[in-house]
Amino acid sequence: MKHGIYYAYWEQEWEADYKYYIEKVAKLGFDILEIAASPLPFYSDIQINELKACAHGNGITLTVGHGPSAEQNLSSPDPDIRKNAKAFYTDLLKRLYKLDVHLIGGALYSYWPIDYTKTIDKKGDWERSVESVREVAKVAEACGVDFCLEVLNRFENYLINTAQEGVDFVKQVDHNNVKVMLDTFHMNIEEDSIGGAIRTAGSYLGHLHTGECNRKVPGRGRIPWVEIGEALADIGYNGSVVMEPFVRMGGTVGSNIKVWRDISNGADEKMLDREAQAALDFSRYVLECHKHS
Amino acid sequence: MKHGIYYAYWEQEWEADYKYYIEKVAKLGFDILEIAASPLPFYSDIQINELKACAHGNGITLTVGHGPSAEQNLSSPDPDIRKNAKAFYTDLLKRLYKLDVHLIGGALYSYWPIDYTKTIDKKGDWERSVESVREVAKVAEACGVDFCLEVLNRFENYLINTAQEGVDFVKQVDHNNVKVMLDTFHMNIEEDSIGGAIRTAGSYLGHLHTGECNRKVPGRGRIPWVEIGEALADIGYNGSVVMEPFVRMGGTVGSNIKVWRDISNGADEKMLDREAQAALDFSRYVLECHKHS
Amino acid sequence: MKHGIYYAYWEQEWEADYKYYIEKVAKLGFDILEIAASPLPFYSDIQINELKACAHGNGITLTVGHGPSAEQNLSSPDPDIRKNAKAFYTDLLKRLYKLDVHLIGGALYSYWPIDYTKTIDKKGDWERSVESVREVAKVAEACGVDFCLEVLNRFENYLINTAQEGVDFVKQVDHNNVKVMLDTFHMNIEEDSIGGAIRTAGSYLGHLHTGECNRKVPGRGRIPWVEIGEALADIGYNGSVVMEPFVRMGGTVGSNIKVWRDISNGADEKMLDREAQAALDFSRYVLECHKHS
Amino acid sequence: MKHGIYYAYWEQEWEADYKYYIEKVAKLGFDILEIAASPLPFYSDIQINELKACAHGNGITLTVGHGPSAEQNLSSPDPDIRKNAKAFYTDLLKRLYKLDVHLIGGALYSYWPIDYTKTIDKKGDWERSVESVREVAKVAEACGVDFCLEVLNRFENYLINTAQEGVDFVKQVDHNNVKVMLDTFHMNIEEDSIGGAIRTAGSYLGHLHTGECNRKVPGRGRIPWVEIGEALADIGYNGSVVMEPFVRMGGTVGSNIKVWRDISNGADEKMLDREAQAALDFSRYVLECHKHS
Repeated sequence: MKHGIYYAYWEQEWEADYKYYIEKVAKLGFDILEIAASPLPFYSDIQINELKACAHGNGITLTVGHGPSAEQNLSSPDPDIRKNAKAFYTDLLKRLYKLDVHLIGGALYSYWPIDYTKTIDKKGDWERSVESVREVAKVAEACGVDFCLEVLNRFENYLINTAQEGVDFVKQVDHNNVKVMLDTFHMNIEEDSIGGAIRTAGSYLGHLHTGECNRKVPGRGRIPWVEIGEALADIGYNGSVVMEPFVRMGGTVGSNIKVWRDISNGADEKMLDREAQAALDFSRYVLECHKHS
Repeated sequence: MKHGIYYAYWEQEWEADYKYYIEKVAKLGFDILEIAASPLPFYSDIQINELKACAHGNGITLTVGHGPSAEQNLSSPDPDIRKNAKAFYTDLLKRLYKLDVHLIGGALYSYWPIDYTKTIDKKGDWERSVESVREVAKVAEACGVDFCLEVLNRFENYLINTAQEGVDFVKQVDHNNVKVMLDTFHMNIEEDSIGGAIRTAGSYLGHLHTGECNRKVPGRGRIPWVEIGEALADIGYNGSVVMEPFVRMGGTVGSNIKVWRDISNGADEKMLDREAQAALDFSRYVLECHKHS
Repeated sequence: MKHGIYYAYWEQEWEADYKYYIEKVAKLGFDILEIAASPLPFYSDIQINELKACAHGNGITLTVGHGPSAEQNLSSPDPDIRKNAKAFYTDLLKRLYKLDVHLIGGALYSYWPIDYTKTIDKKGDWERSVESVREVAKVAEACGVDFCLEVLNRFENYLINTAQEGVDFVKQVDHNNVKVMLDTFHMNIEEDSIGGAIRTAGSYLGHLHTGECNRKVPGRGRIPWVEIGEALADIGYNGSVVMEPFVRMGGTVGSNIKVWRDISNGADEKMLDREAQAALDFSRYVLECHKHS
Repeated sequence: MKHGIYYAYWEQEWEADYKYYIEKVAKLGFDILEIAASPLPFYSDIQINELKACAHGNGITLTVGHGPSAEQNLSSPDPDIRKNAKAFYTDLLKRLYKLDVHLIGGALYSYWPIDYTKTIDKKGDWERSVESVREVAKVAEACGVDFCLEVLNRFENYLINTAQEGVDFVKQVDHNNVKVMLDTFHMNIEEDSIGGAIRTAGSYLGHLHTGECNRKVPGRGRIPWVEIGEALADIGYNGSVVMEPFVRMGGTVGSNIKVWRDISNGADEKMLDREAQAALDFSRYVLECHKHS
């Protein structure tokens, strides 16, 4: 498995100097840096090539996370919004191709965060989204990108809240590039069993985000990591494992993730680095040891 | 400990014929029925006395849960709203006195659910709420009611998300009738350790809500019940334990609790009854056995 | 699944009036009473028929447990002992046939408890035992009895300490009537993962003994029952689940099981009965709810 | 807390070139090497000084483990054996003084392994042992050594099987140098709750051995390490934490510890070193993070 971290652990806005973080995570021993898709549509080809070169130069694989805006909602009842969303993803996927990125994950089938003041039409949105994702999947395939649909908790989405719903959706889309993405933070809220959810995802699992129940780095709480390592071995998962910790208040990130108290014990950047590195060692240690003899 | 259940397990609106549920839970073997406060301000004295008589007649203790509206927000920066909120609680507490109810719990220090489109002023709201709660506490004392402040997860409040913050707030209010209320659903999202959170609450713990991570009845998921029973014994807790399961979609309850899939396996009322009774036996079995020899 | 209990929970010798316990466990709501094989070779046909009638009359299924003496050791390097052991099992299986018993479990492949002052020849004993068991299996098949080989912890045997070794042994024997028997007490000492061990046993699992780490009744300790229920559902296990609690000091049972302190909190028979009944409800509740939707 | 490892992880006899292991564990990043007491009575003063110099030179603290023979049994009904045992410990403690060792742990109150063919007189042995230990404690005090009584599982002793019994025994001895020693391998078999056992030991806890249920290195199994870290923080434990893994078959160690299968996946010394180092990082990471803010 390849181990990574999401840049926003250090940041308070959904955008940053990704090259700075490529170098940092390389020094900390990570294989992957996950970046946010939101600024990429505004990158020039030069910026894209520089970012690619920096990643290659540091031996870092880039993966991309995205929380689609309401205008990028593939499930929207508004045909214009769906059209706009497909165009957005088509452009984005081509940029990922240039960037040598082969994986994008998030609530790609919907938008984030949900405006729950609006009426929820799960059935209609599900059908529309399956159809839109199926279309976008062809572009993803052409660009060599896995289009990973993240299972979210009830507060952050209503379409796909469990691994079973994720598998049902992906089976209905029925395209090799469209996979299930699980995240221990969300599984901890919705699943009867986290190992069971991973086994349910099985061969459909395309990406795994990790973090503790309160979004601390892996190992600082109650998430059953040994159970998770065992289940990943049971399904033969050898893909990416990206920790997505959020421990600092403030900024758009702090507000979107709803970090209403300092969970970092007042850590400065150096302390955050050390904590991330220790969590990386921990993740490799508890998730990799379950290869079946 | 006395064991109870929240009526909304069977209902899809935050209001019901409470007498029907008093009789039901008595037959199922519960000690407590928790009801919602929202309709009580509109009860006539006759209705209040009938409800009290029904509870007494069935040997059932009533406790009350409340999710305050924005107009009942004791922490509001708007003095008029705070004034209205104090008046609301003053009237409500007097009705609880008539109803022979000695415990009310919920986000009483704030409102629910939070409108996160508004700016969050945690520090200011905290101070205002401490002051308002301290005032209301005097009425609670006069009416013989424990005013239990529920620690909620980040999606449902920003003021009190951990047992430590609950204890800090209650200490600052400094009134015997104001206590901490914990709920396994919320603890599962925010706490490093659920046993640790209960020990942190210690003697300040006034009320405990139980349910699985995805709000199934206790015993149907991953919540560490033996650890919880042990921690309750460590702090000598002998108060109320009320399960608050939500397994059905639909209605205001389904939407407020965000139940976007049927978690009841299509259960009818009879099956819900049996499941609640089995969960009651389970709760008594795993929570009561830890008395220190 | 059928739920049962081993009679020795109430007794201090490996023999008792089994009819007394058939009636008791039937009243407590069990499906199965497990009895010890040791006295059966000395039962007259009348005694056997009376026992069978009592079981049938009370709707109780009998299963049999056996801790073979050194003279009944199918793995012994001494050919005479092996011969004697095969004769013992042949006679015993025919008695089980008459008794309408279809399952015997224990260290049937070896003897118990092991005399660790003697040299251990695991390889030689394993081969001899596979051969002997294969022979006895034919008698078991003729008598309609499942011959279940119990995986034990290191202190009580050296041949089969893990589910993997159990499956390897049973595969090598290669006979439908020879199956793996697991016990949560032993798994808790030897297995990396209890759910994993059950999945390893898979279709070879013929019998399951349950109890807490210190042999208290299920639900009074740390054994991960929900994980076990999930794994049993994963392998589609629908066989017998027999709790084997030992909570009292004294007698041959107390000494063989090494109960060096009273774990029953001074329980009298009535209290033992109530505890067993509560543990039965608990077992059904946590083990049966994982049927895959 | 100081973290260490028992030399016998690499060895198959209860004796070795301890200087070789002092250098090894220093390179692996340990603070402590635990050695066996058995060869020390035969060390010359020169050997003792060389060993002390080597430990000091490598910044390694030595602790000592001991499994007393039947002739060193402080609880023996035979007064001559008790006399011999006291003389043995008196001499040994003086050697530890010279060696600058301040902690010895094991079944010091009894002998190991127990011969269960003999009758068990728990009450009598307990009283005799309390008296003998109280005498030896004076020598331990004079030599500046903590005399730590290890709580063992039922198969390896009958006197002290739980933290509660350990505390009862140590309270009865009533000497500052006599403390309780816990080991996760033994706690996993006997305790209702491992965190609870640590809290029961509280200020009496003098030494902690760690390892998985099947004696793999910490982190490779089901032991609840986060729960343990939390409990250690709750009791303010800042002493020694020594892992005692046994993963290889063979020799006296393999037979005494009853390792009847290769648990090391065929590891050579280099692989054992890497595994120990990774387990050390894991232990520090999960046990140290629970300092109460």
